[in-house]
Amino acid sequence: MAHINESYLELSGSYLFAHINRRVAAFRSSHPDADIIRLGIGDVTRPLVPAVIRAMHAAVDEMASAATFRGYGPEQGYEFLQEAILDGDYRPRNVKLDADEIFISDGSKCDVANIQEIFSADVKIAIADPVYPVYLDSNIMAGRSRNIVFLPGSAGNDFLPQIPDEKVDLIYLCSPNNPTGSVLDRAALTRWVEYARENRAVILFDSAYSAYIRDETLPRSIYEIPGARDVAIEFKSFSKSASFTGVRCAYTVIPKELKGFDRNGNPHLLHTFWNRRQTTKFNGTSYIVQRAAEAACRGEGRIQNQAVIDYYMGNADIIRNGLEKAGYTVYGGKNAPYIWWKLPSGLDSMKFFDTLLETCQVVGTPGVGFGSCGEGYFRLTAFGDRERTREAVKRIVAAGL
Amino acid sequence: MAHINESYLELSGSYLFAHINRRVAAFRSSHPDADIIRLGIGDVTRPLVPAVIRAMHAAVDEMASAATFRGYGPEQGYEFLQEAILDGDYRPRNVKLDADEIFISDGSKCDVANIQEIFSADVKIAIADPVYPVYLDSNIMAGRSRNIVFLPGSAGNDFLPQIPDEKVDLIYLCSPNNPTGSVLDRAALTRWVEYARENRAVILFDSAYSAYIRDETLPRSIYEIPGARDVAIEFKSFSKSASFTGVRCAYTVIPKELKGFDRNGNPHLLHTFWNRRQTTKFNGTSYIVQRAAEAACRGEGRIQNQAVIDYYMGNADIIRNGLEKAGYTVYGGKNAPYIWWKLPSGLDSMKFFDTLLETCQVVGTPGVGFGSCGEGYFRLTAFGDRERTREAVKRIVAAGL
Repeated sequence: MAHINESYLELSGSYLFAHINRRVAAFRSSHPDADIIRLGIGDVTRPLVPAVIRAMHAAVDEMASAATFRGYGPEQGYEFLQEAILDGDYRPRNVKLDADEIFISDGSKCDVANIQEIFSADVKIAIADPVYPVYLDSNIMAGRSRNIVFLPGSAGNDFLPQIPDEKVDLIYLCSPNNPTGSVLDRAALTRWVEYARENRAVILFDSAYSAYIRDETLPRSIYEIPGARDVAIEFKSFSKSASFTGVRCAYTVIPKELKGFDRNGNPHLLHTFWNRRQTTKFNGTSYIVQRAAEAACRGEGRIQNQAVIDYYMGNADIIRNGLEKAGYTVYGGKNAPYIWWKLPSGLDSMKFFDTLLETCQVVGTPGVGFGSCGEGYFRLTAFGDRERTREAVKRIVAAGL
Repeated sequence: MAHINESYLELSGSYLFAHINRRVAAFRSSHPDADIIRLGIGDVTRPLVPAVIRAMHAAVDEMASAATFRGYGPEQGYEFLQEAILDGDYRPRNVKLDADEIFISDGSKCDVANIQEIFSADVKIAIADPVYPVYLDSNIMAGRSRNIVFLPGSAGNDFLPQIPDEKVDLIYLCSPNNPTGSVLDRAALTRWVEYARENRAVILFDSAYSAYIRDETLPRSIYEIPGARDVAIEFKSFSKSASFTGVRCAYTVIPKELKGFDRNGNPHLLHTFWNRRQTTKFNGTSYIVQRAAEAACRGEGRIQNQAVIDYYMGNADIIRNGLEKAGYTVYGGKNAPYIWWKLPSGLDSMKFFDTLLETCQVVGTPGVGFGSCGEGYFRLTAFGDRERTREAVKRIVAAGL
């Protein structure tokens, strides 16, 4: 009899987001003329920049002729892209990586969800709360629901994950954090690197939003911290840095010093393990997409994408300043495209979702969707249109919720 | 301490293919003027067809403007592609599927490797030998190395997987088979469907090469067999049917009747499980790629790709007829792009690889690379250039190996 993986039965349903979609649909049908503004979705809205479009057309043309056609590429990605990433993201910050320490993929969601496969079923896992739900769900699916140590975020700790009392083996850090917009500074990150070195733990550093960091003193890569090469895997994505949410490209860095351990305490290179995982279960990222990502890393493409990021961060300023001026307490939005809004005390984030929709026709995301510590908060995103964002803030301020 | 997944240590190294690459590189450097012909690689060589190129350029242009830009798409794929697949592959063969039973992905390798995640760790798994190594390796990685029942293929059973004495829960069928080119006919497939229905087993039907079936009496989809919707998952790919090996698109069909069972024997819909897996661990296939796949399914694109398949099958005929005329025994190559060559008795397939390279400067794949039952056989592929394929056969025949 084909038995199922019963760990799936332990997942909480994605009820909240389904509920949100149903609510918006219901509101829309009962108010067909309502002018709804969506500041809930974590998706970009600006188109691909001209340099990327040009590179994609050129790559498509290459695929049209036998002389330049590309079939299967390396599962790890093409060297031209690995080099472009080094030139764009790492060399300017004096981070030294080998090109083959960078594994190109079709998305960070896949990589952060799949990385747990190379670790034992009994590792103890630290996960921030609130945070992107994929870390937790992918580990529940793999049977680790009883191995999770949550790191509670609150206004008191600036929503930054603190080192727990209990010993942990794998630590997911998301910085800039989704949904709170908090960023680990050099000192905080150094403490985590030291913890991992002392405990032979591994840090899984998700920096999908690092391009939004404006404060030059904040690290954009964990490898800016001395000793991190021995203990950290880094995930980066083109989704938010180059409007690639529908194009699909990301990368994962595994330094060759990084080790895991077998039951007898013998070290094994995690680079070898991930390489085996990717060559067995993945067949490389689309050639055309890799050429597009290369163009996003270099020259004009980089400059054009920086302008898009600046545009979104202009929206973040409008939301943040608007709400603060109206007397609300908000976090994030300075070095991240997310504004984490503290709801007037006692308000349940799911009920506030309804209130905001009904009163202002503005859609956001209830904080509880990112973990129980998110209750009492609300996420607004900076990925919208400038005028619509202004209008949303105007409505919120006028409503005096 | 970050413990590794020790199941990885049970994987046999990919020594054979690494060894092959080293041998070819060594031969090339010691014989810089040698005119090597590669009939080893399972990769296409013809470019994308004009209708697909046109669709990709159009999709790239859509991504250049805010009005038509697409961000995150549905993790399951766009309905326009699901509908095109139904129109291209299923409706003409009277197979009824709902659009949302089709999950679009970036490759069949990922899907056939990931599908085991939704099943319990203790399921008993039947895998043909010889066959595509991903079925075995992905299950070893998941800790199932002791749960495998091999289905030995031989000339005596036409390299078709036979129902084993031992009861099995999951059955990987690859038809047309890689590497033998054998195809399960309606009667054989019906026996497997009946077996699965009687034993509440699930068939994982990989038909990545179904577009190469020329015999109209052979099924191209397992759903052509009555009752298959209750017991089978089907994997199909654009890699070989539309030259997409470097573009990356495939799909997996999970009918809504298909059930797995929990420990208490309660049924659960596998469609729900896979949907949860994909929405949690995957973020959809590139929009541009999905538009390209749509064009490959319909009208001109379909006709142009059929011409490419016919071209490759012309190569298959040349290899097959040439070797047969020279007195060799060969299998496959009639409804598949692979020719499975029985080596003169006693020859070890790895040693024959060296002989063929040195004597004829032709590269193929040793049968043992696909499982121990592949020993004594050699795989040649039809994906090369017509004139080069002719030349390779000429050299082999002249060498009289």
